Amino acid sequence: MARLEELVATASKVVGPDAASRLHFVAELDRLRLVERRSYVGGGVRREDAASHSWHLAVMALVFGDFLGDDIDLDHVVRMLLVHDIVEIDAGDVSVYEAEASKRAEAEHLAARRLYGLLPDAVGNCLWRLWLEFEAGETPEARAAAALDRLAPLVLNWLSKGATWREHGTHAGQVRALQQRATANHPGLRSLTEVIIDDAIRRGWLPEAPG
Amino acid sequence: MARLEELVATASKVVGPDAASRLHFVAELDRLRLVERRSYVGGGVRREDAASHSWHLAVMALVFGDFLGDDIDLDHVVRMLLVHDIVEIDAGDVSVYEAEASKRAEAEHLAARRLYGLLPDAVGNCLWRLWLEFEAGETPEARAAAALDRLAPLVLNWLSKGATWREHGTHAGQVRALQQRATANHPGLRSLTEVIIDDAIRRGWLPEAPG
Repeated sequence: MARLEELVATASKVVGPDAASRLHFVAELDRLRLVERRSYVGGGVRREDAASHSWHLAVMALVFGDFLGDDIDLDHVVRMLLVHDIVEIDAGDVSVYEAEASKRAEAEHLAARRLYGLLPDAVGNCLWRLWLEFEAGETPEARAAAALDRLAPLVLNWLSKGATWREHGTHAGQVRALQQRATANHPGLRSLTEVIIDDAIRRGWLPEAPG
Repeated sequence: MARLEELVATASKVVGPDAASRLHFVAELDRLRLVERRSYVGGGVRREDAASHSWHLAVMALVFGDFLGDDIDLDHVVRMLLVHDIVEIDAGDVSVYEAEASKRAEAEHLAARRLYGLLPDAVGNCLWRLWLEFEAGETPEARAAAALDRLAPLVLNWLSKGATWREHGTHAGQVRALQQRATANHPGLRSLTEVIIDDAIRRGWLPEAPG
């Protein structure tokens, strides 16, 4: 990235460090598209990347807006979803079934410091706080974001005939537990996840019990 | 997609047509990741797809928020950018240099009718109107969105050492004209585009005049 730093230095001289640092961050963002997730897109064409995943979730927030609670700030949910995986540019994706929580948290906090630290303080802190709020999962907006973050992979797994479940030997009990935790406050979304899970079982894409 | 329609029909019986139709739309969204654009990601690893492009632009709106105008509704810009390419699920991507305007417009309007028509009216019309506003390019929010939609490919082209410019025999005059039109109301963004263009010329990635 030495070349990028040269461009940022040039930009800093011409337009000032504030604009130049935003350009730096925006160029770094490109790398989130190279972070692979476990899910497949297009029914199995290739692995999903973390950037298009974030897009899918943000549009899902707009689509399921009135399923997420009456008092919710929907645009805040959208903003949170847009940035929730940016730390993976440095820290990579960790499967929900395999995460070592403490190591993951440490890598992600270092990533947040470096990446959001590229930006002018006001902008960087704003995005950083959105990510911390998502991770803490305590506000209604963060819980809505988390519910969508679990619903999307379920849809992709159904669309790829259970490809990721098969790869990881996942059974329906695990999927149900994960979805029920994520949708505890969102009965409308939970009912949808149950329809998808039941249909996947019926089609033989998801075993009911450990095989 | 017969299988997806079966799932939607099942969901419609269990949770009702409103929730089922949203699920249908969300599953269709997955296909935007298979729509290739001209730009490259990761400095040349692969073509950009329209879904991760939309994510990049939406985050850029958050990053460059105060460059876009004082009175602007930034969340409206974000929403517009999230949906601005959804019609390409049916209509495909058309290069800014090669578009046949009338054919493109017709294909995109058919796509909008089918895709947004999958949703309950209130939700579908809301997203459809965002896209129409982006296409019309008349509101301050639509113009801000359009400026970011031109800045992002410039950054990607720089990151891939001018790969797309080389493929299409593009010279600096064309790039400057396009960027100047898009950033007419955003001098801060325009200055940044000029820095990037000048640097690309200096490095030999973008010829100053037709070769």
